[in-house]
Amino acid sequence: MSIKVKIVNDPVYGFIRFPEPELVRVIDHPWFQRLRNIKQMGLAQLVYPGAVHTRFAHSLGACHLMGKALDELKAKGIIPGKDECLAARLAALLHDVGHAPFSHSLEEELVGISHETLSRIIMRRMDTEFGGMLEKAIDVFDHSASPPALSKGDGARYLHQLVSSQLDVDRMDYLNRDSFYTGVSEGVIGYDRILQMLTVRNNELMVEEKGVHSVEKFIIARRLMYWQVYLHKTVLGAEMLLINIFKRAKELVRQGIELFASPALNYFLKRHLTEDDFIKDPEHLIKFCELDDNDVMVSIKVWQTHEDKVLSKLSKMLILRKLYKVVLSSENLAGILGDKKEQAKSLLGLTDEEVPYFAFSGITSNSTYNINDELIKIETKSGIIKNITEIDDSLVNQTLARAVHKNYICFITPNSALEELTF
Amino acid sequence: MSIKVKIVNDPVYGFIRFPEPELVRVIDHPWFQRLRNIKQMGLAQLVYPGAVHTRFAHSLGACHLMGKALDELKAKGIIPGKDECLAARLAALLHDVGHAPFSHSLEEELVGISHETLSRIIMRRMDTEFGGMLEKAIDVFDHSASPPALSKGDGARYLHQLVSSQLDVDRMDYLNRDSFYTGVSEGVIGYDRILQMLTVRNNELMVEEKGVHSVEKFIIARRLMYWQVYLHKTVLGAEMLLINIFKRAKELVRQGIELFASPALNYFLKRHLTEDDFIKDPEHLIKFCELDDNDVMVSIKVWQTHEDKVLSKLSKMLILRKLYKVVLSSENLAGILGDKKEQAKSLLGLTDEEVPYFAFSGITSNSTYNINDELIKIETKSGIIKNITEIDDSLVNQTLARAVHKNYICFITPNSALEELTF
Amino acid sequence: MSIKVKIVNDPVYGFIRFPEPELVRVIDHPWFQRLRNIKQMGLAQLVYPGAVHTRFAHSLGACHLMGKALDELKAKGIIPGKDECLAARLAALLHDVGHAPFSHSLEEELVGISHETLSRIIMRRMDTEFGGMLEKAIDVFDHSASPPALSKGDGARYLHQLVSSQLDVDRMDYLNRDSFYTGVSEGVIGYDRILQMLTVRNNELMVEEKGVHSVEKFIIARRLMYWQVYLHKTVLGAEMLLINIFKRAKELVRQGIELFASPALNYFLKRHLTEDDFIKDPEHLIKFCELDDNDVMVSIKVWQTHEDKVLSKLSKMLILRKLYKVVLSSENLAGILGDKKEQAKSLLGLTDEEVPYFAFSGITSNSTYNINDELIKIETKSGIIKNITEIDDSLVNQTLARAVHKNYICFITPNSALEELTF
Amino acid sequence: MSIKVKIVNDPVYGFIRFPEPELVRVIDHPWFQRLRNIKQMGLAQLVYPGAVHTRFAHSLGACHLMGKALDELKAKGIIPGKDECLAARLAALLHDVGHAPFSHSLEEELVGISHETLSRIIMRRMDTEFGGMLEKAIDVFDHSASPPALSKGDGARYLHQLVSSQLDVDRMDYLNRDSFYTGVSEGVIGYDRILQMLTVRNNELMVEEKGVHSVEKFIIARRLMYWQVYLHKTVLGAEMLLINIFKRAKELVRQGIELFASPALNYFLKRHLTEDDFIKDPEHLIKFCELDDNDVMVSIKVWQTHEDKVLSKLSKMLILRKLYKVVLSSENLAGILGDKKEQAKSLLGLTDEEVPYFAFSGITSNSTYNINDELIKIETKSGIIKNITEIDDSLVNQTLARAVHKNYICFITPNSALEELTF
Repeated sequence: MSIKVKIVNDPVYGFIRFPEPELVRVIDHPWFQRLRNIKQMGLAQLVYPGAVHTRFAHSLGACHLMGKALDELKAKGIIPGKDECLAARLAALLHDVGHAPFSHSLEEELVGISHETLSRIIMRRMDTEFGGMLEKAIDVFDHSASPPALSKGDGARYLHQLVSSQLDVDRMDYLNRDSFYTGVSEGVIGYDRILQMLTVRNNELMVEEKGVHSVEKFIIARRLMYWQVYLHKTVLGAEMLLINIFKRAKELVRQGIELFASPALNYFLKRHLTEDDFIKDPEHLIKFCELDDNDVMVSIKVWQTHEDKVLSKLSKMLILRKLYKVVLSSENLAGILGDKKEQAKSLLGLTDEEVPYFAFSGITSNSTYNINDELIKIETKSGIIKNITEIDDSLVNQTLARAVHKNYICFITPNSALEELTF
Repeated sequence: MSIKVKIVNDPVYGFIRFPEPELVRVIDHPWFQRLRNIKQMGLAQLVYPGAVHTRFAHSLGACHLMGKALDELKAKGIIPGKDECLAARLAALLHDVGHAPFSHSLEEELVGISHETLSRIIMRRMDTEFGGMLEKAIDVFDHSASPPALSKGDGARYLHQLVSSQLDVDRMDYLNRDSFYTGVSEGVIGYDRILQMLTVRNNELMVEEKGVHSVEKFIIARRLMYWQVYLHKTVLGAEMLLINIFKRAKELVRQGIELFASPALNYFLKRHLTEDDFIKDPEHLIKFCELDDNDVMVSIKVWQTHEDKVLSKLSKMLILRKLYKVVLSSENLAGILGDKKEQAKSLLGLTDEEVPYFAFSGITSNSTYNINDELIKIETKSGIIKNITEIDDSLVNQTLARAVHKNYICFITPNSALEELTF
Repeated sequence: MSIKVKIVNDPVYGFIRFPEPELVRVIDHPWFQRLRNIKQMGLAQLVYPGAVHTRFAHSLGACHLMGKALDELKAKGIIPGKDECLAARLAALLHDVGHAPFSHSLEEELVGISHETLSRIIMRRMDTEFGGMLEKAIDVFDHSASPPALSKGDGARYLHQLVSSQLDVDRMDYLNRDSFYTGVSEGVIGYDRILQMLTVRNNELMVEEKGVHSVEKFIIARRLMYWQVYLHKTVLGAEMLLINIFKRAKELVRQGIELFASPALNYFLKRHLTEDDFIKDPEHLIKFCELDDNDVMVSIKVWQTHEDKVLSKLSKMLILRKLYKVVLSSENLAGILGDKKEQAKSLLGLTDEEVPYFAFSGITSNSTYNINDELIKIETKSGIIKNITEIDDSLVNQTLARAVHKNYICFITPNSALEELTF
Repeated sequence: MSIKVKIVNDPVYGFIRFPEPELVRVIDHPWFQRLRNIKQMGLAQLVYPGAVHTRFAHSLGACHLMGKALDELKAKGIIPGKDECLAARLAALLHDVGHAPFSHSLEEELVGISHETLSRIIMRRMDTEFGGMLEKAIDVFDHSASPPALSKGDGARYLHQLVSSQLDVDRMDYLNRDSFYTGVSEGVIGYDRILQMLTVRNNELMVEEKGVHSVEKFIIARRLMYWQVYLHKTVLGAEMLLINIFKRAKELVRQGIELFASPALNYFLKRHLTEDDFIKDPEHLIKFCELDDNDVMVSIKVWQTHEDKVLSKLSKMLILRKLYKVVLSSENLAGILGDKKEQAKSLLGLTDEEVPYFAFSGITSNSTYNINDELIKIETKSGIIKNITEIDDSLVNQTLARAVHKNYICFITPNSALEELTF
């Protein structure tokens, strides 16, 4: 039986093709199909109702952009071989396969280890299942982890950079896709032009000098998306609420209190696992791969009527979209937190131990361009290689390179006033 | 406390505004928020992975288009008063509030009554809660139900037509939105131009003659979306699979067999209700409004390991996306069904009673333009009113007006070959 | 010296590439560069101010779509060789090279022979200049002209069909491009999907059955563009005005009256040439290739103050956009023409000989799909070949296949009232 | 006679309406219609073939955005009266009416005074013709010219800022429109969001704090469009070529040598006028308003065969698109200019006086955000007003505020190699 070429109609890029049978096998795997039920932007849909797209679509998109990048490099005579191309496409396809439900928000509270680590574990498990088909893809994905000198796949360093760096297909796809689905045009990037300007020198990915402006635009688009979308204060508040719900739920389970949950969710409510655990006992991973956003949402819906006041109140706040009031500021907010705690205490009749669920502070930060990370390299017309920050009149300078930290406090009010621009 | 104007960033229309406090109150209602968790296109995302948008976004969009239509009519001196405008906006907002999870597929199997009926019941219940705020909106929504002569709101017949007719804001929004999210450009319509051509004569909605081509395009876009998307054979197969899963689940429950389910879903697995039941016992509606797509998906995921062979096999087919093989044809397919039944029987070792879950036939149909329904009226330049089918050289003729019926069979194969164009 | 790959940033398709040096040589040729100064839609910009795009951009676009079509066919194992692909690309690039200024409107009045004939003559002349480089391209372009049995390039019949048939890259590009630049979304077609559904059987181009709806949409889009844009009555009136200006100008020149004109335009005002003339005397073609829209517009601007009343009045009408009043109808308009003639006569004090410049009638027609022309073929799933009109429930039926004729009259009014939707 | 509402189908914004009869009268004026024949981006179409849009469309677009800005301000209770709104719309419509053919390139060489000055003179002349209808519009347009204290229209300072400032409807429209037509997505701005964030304090236009990121994006989009499009080296070279052609043509005319030209162009070839001349003798303005791009292009086409070697060579270079080779650099290029001059001299056999037409140097510069100009003001949530450069972590800092100067040299080569990305 011949497996046909898969063609997907993607609203962002149009028809995209997956002619490689290896890709099709991965896409059809239940662990990849699971990504259909994990929203790319988690709770951001509470502010941007259009943004309900999935990690499944994002992963296909990243794999598609990888294909376009490789085509460009081939056209320039940089000849990644057929095997390397397939490996890079597979790595792009699988880069997010280890995401927990609601991605970043819950990975620490619910699972305990990072999605990158889980992606790696899943890829290895799938590789065994597929008889070594993913070996090279894992090399591409893992590259940065190994000390450069010993790395076996040194010739393909740029492939790893395409999968994971400050200018990778992951970021290119998510900026485009998230802009498309939120309707925030600020995030649209000229990915076509960036791809066209990619080149390779000494096995490192770089950008031709005439592409500098497009890269600047890319970095700034990312910055704007952070402040306007990803760290939007209402989204931040919703994510903190979700985290608190699970913190409380796990605490109750620890105390032996019964909670409604799907079998897979129940499994994780009862455990706190380490990377080691996952490696030793394959059952953990199997359970993990049964989890998706639906388990989380159904449980929270049921928990609205749980007898624990904290859990039921928090759950109601999320389901009815009566979120925390959030203040986000570059100034220190400690001064007003005390009042907010008192207010919460009296509003809901809380104990001291319960108050922090309803009034608390934190710090959020965002580096648009991290100068401690691997830098974006530019090849000038005269063949000299510079970091993008060294280019004359580059926008990617101190301002952008400095991480921006903001303080926030979350609390409840008598009115639970709704935020603007949100439902 | 002042409630601020809500502004939503909609990827289809850009910023859309909801300045009326009444609309904001409805949007904030938990029963409306529920629509965030009901996908507009149900299982079509198995073929079009981008199409995961919600009834929530569609309802906001329909309400937005209603506002634009009313603005046009006002600019033409057809003066719906402020109250009528609000009523029409509310009716558009709430027209889909009674949808069950997975919409059309499950409403019969799971709930037992139509979403229109449930929308009506919900609107009345909300009206009581809001102290009569929705009374006029219900009039607009209900218009067609009453015999025209007795209808109290006869002056606003065109408002009802804007909410529900062959050229309503519901269809305009869903064609646009579904095209946007599926990436199927065939469904894009010039809604802007259609709205601009709307007018009213004798309290009836009509289209100015120079808008005829845009209406033709609208009708044809709908036809194409039906064949290419809504009745795509893979989508059809997935919906039949979902229906069969619930048919089986209800049967098992009837036999007293225990199934994992959220409390709300459990409630409906155990009952078969009528419209009357819903009206008499308010508890049914409350439970209904706790149900969404997540309950359905989580249960099916768990049912994959149920001991009933039929339920577990069907559930696995859906979760792992090993769908029925579907043949769709204008020819009679009865001849080949027998073979398929035998094949299923031997493949899975089924009893005669179980076979119809894995091999069966049916008929699907689509009227692009229903000549037995209320017709789209055109006002010619000379002021004569015609049905669109009577316009010279109209495309909306016999071919389009005839309902198209297609036969289908669904069955399983040894290979469960994947369909093209789908994941 | 190495000629680099040309890459063009096209607003309709994004980056498009021309890696073949032969294409670059043609594009750089002055006779091709001339197309930069010929608007694709002539005077339609008087109604759709955005629609000022050129035949240059359209020709690049058609060549790009040809490349995509060939890629599809290659992916399906239909292997047009490298030479044939180049020939087809060149033919698509050059298919419109013989257009006169203001295209269809002036080709008869100003030049006397059709643009197809001129394209052919130009291609042959360029072929000589390029040492036979265009020979195969001319074969592809000319195919239909030869009796099938004798045709040397019979194997490439489908290539000719891609250049010129009822489903060719010319139509696909202009529908898309004209929609884009006019803002009339009705003309948008899913060209991507159509290209993907193309196939070849017995050297003939056909469409796979599942592409039928996209082809229907394509044909209907064309129909709508005709009525809404190309035959828009204001555009029709402007074109008739332009034709009358040149009719009058040539008449005056015949009478020995001096007119301002660029040398190239002057050349054609003094001559009426046949195909034979063009073939015999190469100078005619050289002069023709100096002509573009600018010559026409500058002259008309100057003619506004010419002493001939008819010429100056008509020229003013065009430059100041006080166009004819046009009535377009399926009914006979002869009855009212007499009045309009009388009115024009007295308004401007015209002689009988002059009146027809200001009040006249005509017939315009449009076949959406011409059943006397080569038909679009569909290959069904079972491998049977049908004409699209024979497909079950096809929209491409009698209504669409019948040519629609409309009568029009053009005249002037005291007020020269401006038309709606136009500037 | 009733003039109907004008509705224009704009590809950038969709349907745009001009319900005010005063606007319609201006649009219909021949001096405004002239803008149909002046390309917005001049010779940039030699690099971006889609960019052939006109100042006519841009002016309508700016007027449309002004309407949207005023609607926002009205919704916020800042009540510009009906008269002020009309004045602002008229000022936006007419802001570019004084542009010479090929805009910036030729205004100095051909006409001698700036387009702003000419716009002002034209508006006054039209005001007289329309019996004072434009008086307030001129006030809005002129505001900055008067010392603030004496300005009569002080209450409407923000209206002037909407017409002309670093955040005006002119820039918003041209960034959007030029992006749309070039296909350079880098220039796309979220104009919708910016308009929504506008507010007024003390009669000054400002932006709400939460709009800061959108304004940053707007400023950066402008910067990118400068380097990627407006100052693209091939465009720069083409503009210098055009200027040199006219420099030479005027020199020849001064020497009494006859040149082909339309009457209007001839008029300006023979004169060098000052603002004073235009004010004193109305004939100059009438002639100016007969000039458009077509006059320029037709003459250059004819001049290709002029006997003056310099004029004919330069003209051929433009028409055949064999442009200067351009080097653009932040380094000093004086060192290599000498060689290039020698090369040109020997290639074409030039005299010392002729050489500078074929090899020369210059400086181009671009201030993305000019801190010496009127600054963009931000109103923080707490009501404090800051310049955008003072906002925490603002991108609009030293780098952006500093004007960037680049040196360039233009010269000819034996091969006249074509530039990449261009035709």
